[in-house]
Amino acid sequence: MRIGEWDHDAFVAQVKNFHGHVAPGVIIGGYMVEMARRTLPEGILYDAISETVQCLPDAIQLLTPCTVGNGWLRVYHFGIYALTLYNKQTGEGTRVRLNVDALQEYPHVRAWFFKEKPKREQEPELLQAEIKAAGMQLLQAIPARIHPDFLVRRGKGAVCRCPKCGEWYPAVLGEVCRICQGDGPYERHAD
Amino acid sequence: MRIGEWDHDAFVAQVKNFHGHVAPGVIIGGYMVEMARRTLPEGILYDAISETVQCLPDAIQLLTPCTVGNGWLRVYHFGIYALTLYNKQTGEGTRVRLNVDALQEYPHVRAWFFKEKPKREQEPELLQAEIKAAGMQLLQAIPARIHPDFLVRRGKGAVCRCPKCGEWYPAVLGEVCRICQGDGPYERHAD
Repeated sequence: MRIGEWDHDAFVAQVKNFHGHVAPGVIIGGYMVEMARRTLPEGILYDAISETVQCLPDAIQLLTPCTVGNGWLRVYHFGIYALTLYNKQTGEGTRVRLNVDALQEYPHVRAWFFKEKPKREQEPELLQAEIKAAGMQLLQAIPARIHPDFLVRRGKGAVCRCPKCGEWYPAVLGEVCRICQGDGPYERHAD
Repeated sequence: MRIGEWDHDAFVAQVKNFHGHVAPGVIIGGYMVEMARRTLPEGILYDAISETVQCLPDAIQLLTPCTVGNGWLRVYHFGIYALTLYNKQTGEGTRVRLNVDALQEYPHVRAWFFKEKPKREQEPELLQAEIKAAGMQLLQAIPARIHPDFLVRRGKGAVCRCPKCGEWYPAVLGEVCRICQGDGPYERHAD
C-alpha cells in the first residue's frame, strides 16, 4: 500500500533517516496520515493536529506540507495516539486513531501499544511485519471539526525587551519573558 | 559558509522543500544551529531546545538528528528567537540568539525582526542577500546549562481508557482525557 509518494519499505527508509530509527509509532503514523488525507477533497489546503508529541509529528512532517515551524502542524501534549488533517478554511476534516478495540488480531501491535512486554522481550521484526501486513486495518477514521477559534492564525504581535534579561519577546506574554517567569528549562539564563 | 552538509544555496533549497517557502527565520535558524553545533565537542549526543514554535524547529529538524517526534527537540512557546543545543548527559551546551543590538548594520534583518514594514513593502531579495552575506555575524552564542530535571526522559506511564469518550490516554493526565477536559481544538470530539 502507498504511503504518500512511497511504498511501505521506502517510507521505512525515510523514517529511519528523519526520525533516527524505525519507530513503530511513526510507521503506523504514516498510514494514519495516508488514511486521513484520502478523505480530504483533492487540492484543498489542509492543516494538521497531532494529539501527542511522540512519533506522530514526524509522520505528519514527512508526509504533508505541515511542519511545526511553519505553523500548519499543531502538536498537543495529550498523550493520545491520534491525528487530524482538516481543511484550513472550514475546519472540516478527519481524525484517525488506532482502533484499540480491534487489536486482538494484532498481538504485536497490541503489546507495543500497551507496553505489555519490557523492551528486551519485544520482537521488533514481528511487530514491523504485522504493521506492514495490516496497514490501515489497524486504524479508525472519524469526521472531526476544528473549533473556529483555532482556525484563526494569530501573529505573536509586538515584541518588547525583557526588563530583567534583555531578551526580546512578545509583549502579550507578560511583564517579563517566559524564561524570567521561571518557565524555561535552563539552570541559569544568558548571564 | 557551510550550514550542516550544505552551502547556503543548497540549504535554502532544503528549506523550501521542507518548510514550504524560504522563510528568513529558518535560514537564519540554519546559521544558529551551525554556530551552536560548532561549540559542542565532536561525537557527543546532543538534544535541542527551540524557544519559539516559529521557524526554528524546522531549522533544527533539517540540520540535526533532533525532531519533535523523537523527543530530542523540545519546543517552547516563549516567542523568543533563540535555540540551544546541549550535551544530553551533562546538560551543558550553547544558546544562540539573534544579536538584536547589532542589527543597525543589517537594516533588512532588523526590519524583518521588528516587523517595521508591512509585508508588501518588504524587499525579500535584499533581506535574503543580507542574511547570506552576514551568516553568523547576526548571531550571539552564550553558554547555557539545562536544569537536571529536564535531562530525565520520562515515559508517558500507564495508559487508561477515558470514561467519557473511550480514548486511551496517559493516566497521569487526569480522570478524563485532556480533550474531555476541554483543552482540545475540536468543536465536537469523536461523536
